[in-house]
Amino acid sequence: MTQRRIIDLLRHGQADERVTVQGWVRTKRELKDFSFVEVNDGSSLANLQVVLEPSLADYSAQLARLNTGASLQVSGVLVSSLGKNQRVELRAESLTVVGEADPATYPLQKKRHSFEFLRTIGHLRSRTNTLGAVMRVRNACARAIHQFFQERDFLWVHTPIITASDCEGAGELFTVSSLNFHQTVNQLPLTTDKTLDFTQDFFGKQAYLTVSGQLEAEVMALALQNVYTFGPTFRAENSNTSRHLAEFWMVEPEMAFCDLEGDQNLAEEFLKFIFKFVLEACPEDMQFFNDRIDNTVLATAENIINHEFARITYTEAIALLEKADRSFEYPVAWGVDLQSEHERYLAEEVFKRPMIVTDYPAQIKAFYMRLNEDGKTVAAMDILAPKIGEIIGGSQREERLEILLQRMAIQGINPEDLWWYLDLRRYGSVPHAGFGLGFERVVQFMTGMANIRDVIPFPRTPLSVEF
Amino acid sequence: MTQRRIIDLLRHGQADERVTVQGWVRTKRELKDFSFVEVNDGSSLANLQVVLEPSLADYSAQLARLNTGASLQVSGVLVSSLGKNQRVELRAESLTVVGEADPATYPLQKKRHSFEFLRTIGHLRSRTNTLGAVMRVRNACARAIHQFFQERDFLWVHTPIITASDCEGAGELFTVSSLNFHQTVNQLPLTTDKTLDFTQDFFGKQAYLTVSGQLEAEVMALALQNVYTFGPTFRAENSNTSRHLAEFWMVEPEMAFCDLEGDQNLAEEFLKFIFKFVLEACPEDMQFFNDRIDNTVLATAENIINHEFARITYTEAIALLEKADRSFEYPVAWGVDLQSEHERYLAEEVFKRPMIVTDYPAQIKAFYMRLNEDGKTVAAMDILAPKIGEIIGGSQREERLEILLQRMAIQGINPEDLWWYLDLRRYGSVPHAGFGLGFERVVQFMTGMANIRDVIPFPRTPLSVEF
Repeated sequence: MTQRRIIDLLRHGQADERVTVQGWVRTKRELKDFSFVEVNDGSSLANLQVVLEPSLADYSAQLARLNTGASLQVSGVLVSSLGKNQRVELRAESLTVVGEADPATYPLQKKRHSFEFLRTIGHLRSRTNTLGAVMRVRNACARAIHQFFQERDFLWVHTPIITASDCEGAGELFTVSSLNFHQTVNQLPLTTDKTLDFTQDFFGKQAYLTVSGQLEAEVMALALQNVYTFGPTFRAENSNTSRHLAEFWMVEPEMAFCDLEGDQNLAEEFLKFIFKFVLEACPEDMQFFNDRIDNTVLATAENIINHEFARITYTEAIALLEKADRSFEYPVAWGVDLQSEHERYLAEEVFKRPMIVTDYPAQIKAFYMRLNEDGKTVAAMDILAPKIGEIIGGSQREERLEILLQRMAIQGINPEDLWWYLDLRRYGSVPHAGFGLGFERVVQFMTGMANIRDVIPFPRTPLSVEF
Repeated sequence: MTQRRIIDLLRHGQADERVTVQGWVRTKRELKDFSFVEVNDGSSLANLQVVLEPSLADYSAQLARLNTGASLQVSGVLVSSLGKNQRVELRAESLTVVGEADPATYPLQKKRHSFEFLRTIGHLRSRTNTLGAVMRVRNACARAIHQFFQERDFLWVHTPIITASDCEGAGELFTVSSLNFHQTVNQLPLTTDKTLDFTQDFFGKQAYLTVSGQLEAEVMALALQNVYTFGPTFRAENSNTSRHLAEFWMVEPEMAFCDLEGDQNLAEEFLKFIFKFVLEACPEDMQFFNDRIDNTVLATAENIINHEFARITYTEAIALLEKADRSFEYPVAWGVDLQSEHERYLAEEVFKRPMIVTDYPAQIKAFYMRLNEDGKTVAAMDILAPKIGEIIGGSQREERLEILLQRMAIQGINPEDLWWYLDLRRYGSVPHAGFGLGFERVVQFMTGMANIRDVIPFPRTPLSVEF
């Protein structure tokens, strides 16, 4: 009698095998001569059908306790199933109800629940078909990311979560403090200006939650060549949309001795790899998303896997948009940033496949992106995919000290705050490049889930920090 | 001419192969008829020796620029080395100095630097032998952790970093806020009590950085059976020791349908796996730590890998300590927590191998640990290793609602704050267990590094939040 996961039984179980299974009741059907209980253990979307016969010890009493949500352990013999939905089912020989779930109060009764409602029971929602599938796909996607980089000898580096650098996103930063806020504000350490005196706080200065590990990843790449981060990042952006979280996970590879072309090549290979990996690792879950959530997710994944990405410059993109036979809400002109409508037009109507747009105007991009020979564009890239929009943003970094200092001056960044970042250009500087991928965005696109709050176990958004 | 990593050349390179290598100069030696340059690209501890002959274009000028820390690209032919330190060396045919490093100011000249000094140049220190080796071992250790759990069908779950639960470690929590602290405190939103009014903050209540993902991991295990977290956790503990960080990474597996014995078995298998994995993945780096940092690290690793862990109860441990033929600084009696000196005596002198101590007194352990039948101990476990001390702490969790409520009442925890955690015991509750492993502690033990600040890229400690 061996203990087995349900996905293993459904895929490989043989008739007459004796097994023990543990899990939770999804539904039961009481018939005249026997009953069916559908058991799920989180290993797969599909349930194991368990057949209970009246000869089972204490049959009626046990059956009464086997309500949706109850936990059980059941041992018995696998038999070929007569039902069309499964290959095998389990004929119970002994059964223990481990923990009950009162049907009068358990909120996950068998009926459709809205995702809004499920968010209010974040401690139970992973027990539903959809959220369970999301969590398995999310894990497979994370696994693919590590496998991709580790196979290529990239080191996973843990860049800091708490940072004193606020140069990148002032105004959207969370402050981190260990001051005792149970005190009145006048008992807190204050400056002569009557602001909080962070010199008396834990870190001796105001500290923040990171918005990106890139600058520190550059440090590591300039010692170890190829590295990647995969960790939480934060935005205190007060926007209640279906695509924003205050806390989300980001993947940021950084490669020394790499230019924008190498960056594009790696990013394209990377995206193809993770979509392919997840399709192979979670076929039932992906089919479920295609059937129940968004009937384009499989086609979108295949489109990414099977097409060479188109590559055009921003200047070429603007030309294509200017001659489009349609009007856009946001007018197009060289120098403006591409809006979502522009990106979708290019990817979905012009190229009909994933594309990489490179060499954006310097004035709309960050200070660290490498200035091109033309003196007005930078070696940036965005990857746009049909149905998805922007999925990756990256760049070659400015490795020339003098030009970097000029770009910082133009953007009003104090070089003293980034002395260490500048040192990387003083000592053994090399061309280097990297990109960033919002992990939840990818899981959202992969699954077709409409709201990003439903692809992370415990979403953090304005006014929402439950569980 | 293919581009290759140095570790690959040193291990597999053949004489007469033509290769291109990129990296940084560690040292150069100018001889009369030729020169040697030692090049490192972060892939290995060992450098590639490059031979430069005067016939090389622009020999003297190039050589003058090849100072410690400079970056270069070099192409040439591999030749068998006459030196005893390497199998092959590279005879340069063409060479480009990519970025210089002024010997007058570059801080990492060839000499011994103290780890204290290296912490002040955290943006450069990963270019040294020791820190480079640490980062490779750290990556291998992280890789081992994912591989161990993924092979066993555990899902990696991302538990929240920002949380409103402060029940576990009041007083050691960092507060997270998006209030604009450039204002004077009287301009900030205040309650009538003149404290900060967190209802007007981003999350609508005071929010904190997590100290553990365990409670949320329990949520996920009770839907998906076997899960693990691997993410950053935080302590605002004002202690400047060689074993504490304000920000560190933690691994927390959680298994449904698992008791304390299953928990011990998994933890023992897990520790053996990661030590074995790292010895195999990073043999040169581990030999370096044994030679240069702590000559017991290989023996300690072998001791963990090759011995079945001893398992005794806390009560048995106290009996052994009471009859020890030595005195302890902290007196021993049933009911007191074990101190480091007690743990080391047991592991190093009595058992001389790793050991698991179980079933601690309820009053010295957390509320969520399962009460044993004796009514006075709980199903907790700590793993202690010779030279290392406590390396893992875990427990079976209290799955019985009534007993959990009693334990919370005794420890003064408000059940309303954990309504969702209690729900897990109301609906389909099952025996479950897990443990926690401080990631940096493991890397520290594995490498023998004396200070935990030297095993994480950017340490966060009191008054220290640089880079």
